[in-house]
Amino acid sequence: MTSIAILGGTGHQGSGLARRFAATGARVLVGSRDPDRARTVVAAWNAPIGMIDVASYADAIDQGEVIVIAVPFSSVDGLLDEIGRHDVAGKVAIDVTVPVTFTDGTVAMIEVAEGSASEHIRARLPDNVRLAVAFKTLPAHLLEDADAPLDCDDFVCGDSDESRARAIALVGLLPELRAVDVGPLSRARSIEQLTLLAIAINRRHKVRDARYCIVGLPTRPA
Amino acid sequence: MTSIAILGGTGHQGSGLARRFAATGARVLVGSRDPDRARTVVAAWNAPIGMIDVASYADAIDQGEVIVIAVPFSSVDGLLDEIGRHDVAGKVAIDVTVPVTFTDGTVAMIEVAEGSASEHIRARLPDNVRLAVAFKTLPAHLLEDADAPLDCDDFVCGDSDESRARAIALVGLLPELRAVDVGPLSRARSIEQLTLLAIAINRRHKVRDARYCIVGLPTRPA
Repeated sequence: MTSIAILGGTGHQGSGLARRFAATGARVLVGSRDPDRARTVVAAWNAPIGMIDVASYADAIDQGEVIVIAVPFSSVDGLLDEIGRHDVAGKVAIDVTVPVTFTDGTVAMIEVAEGSASEHIRARLPDNVRLAVAFKTLPAHLLEDADAPLDCDDFVCGDSDESRARAIALVGLLPELRAVDVGPLSRARSIEQLTLLAIAINRRHKVRDARYCIVGLPTRPA
Repeated sequence: MTSIAILGGTGHQGSGLARRFAATGARVLVGSRDPDRARTVVAAWNAPIGMIDVASYADAIDQGEVIVIAVPFSSVDGLLDEIGRHDVAGKVAIDVTVPVTFTDGTVAMIEVAEGSASEHIRARLPDNVRLAVAFKTLPAHLLEDADAPLDCDDFVCGDSDESRARAIALVGLLPELRAVDVGPLSRARSIEQLTLLAIAINRRHKVRDARYCIVGLPTRPA
């Protein structure tokens, strides 16, 4: 059983993923800057006993086989510095961050010199860890409501066949979620725009769970 | 009955729109740089008699109440020069262009200084014509197969409530297509990325009609 470390695992996106992975029987390690506070948060989730542990970032990075980067984009650089201080050879990192900002009630993209948050992260990750994108377009509100069906598609891209395969396997753990492989890591530029548009749709249409399904793919695997 | 001028109406996107609008009973004017050639093309469509006329760009711009900009992005500036030589006060322009390029078998975005093709067009259109975006993410191949159900969502944005309302009404003419209003014209940046990603999905998954449906909106109007 793969151990999934979720860095930022008590945040909006991270906590939903942690609870949903634990519900499938995966071993989840919630990595937090403040493990004592995180333990209180996690205790309130009523997760299956023993499926979710809490650790510092350092311990979560060391123990996770898959490392999910789920901190706010503004905190990513500090986290990457921490990852750089560890031996992460052979691990796979999954980027779920979205570089958006809210100004005057409007959601907009944060300009990232590398073209996307994922390429920004790739440029700062150790060479011996592979990186993929997943879960970027799933509404945090929906993820957190851990019993609500996701019922949509999830876009995966990555820097290697290996990282994409790991991401697709992770997506496949969650029921009613289909992974759509969209290719190289640079496709994160489009995926992050999809998230931005989904948030804009939420605000304009006064909903909270706008998300995507691709029509025209031949099968919808379970 | 609104008269819809489709500039570039024999191209991939334009011809599908022309045929589908004509099939709903709308009056369509196919604007072409070469009307004689366009007449031959249109004759082969077996469209309802009298529903589709062919005209020069100049005549189509003068006669259309709604002007659909459906030329390749590389030809947009010349077309905008032509539009600028006409009295277009009160007309609404609909931008369906997508600034993508194919290099070494990979599809990529053309960098547009204004942020999107739509904002590029807005900057060059006369002030007295309103602009909206529609139909950008519909696969050209599917549009051209005029009897095939579209069965997806279409993203509309625009520079005014008026232009968005006209675009939403146009989308509403086509069966099995739902308009999703995503707000101001700058949202075209995201919409154009959706098109890029759909093309990438087509190529990667060896399909031709990948398109989007939004899950989480309360109703799906007919």
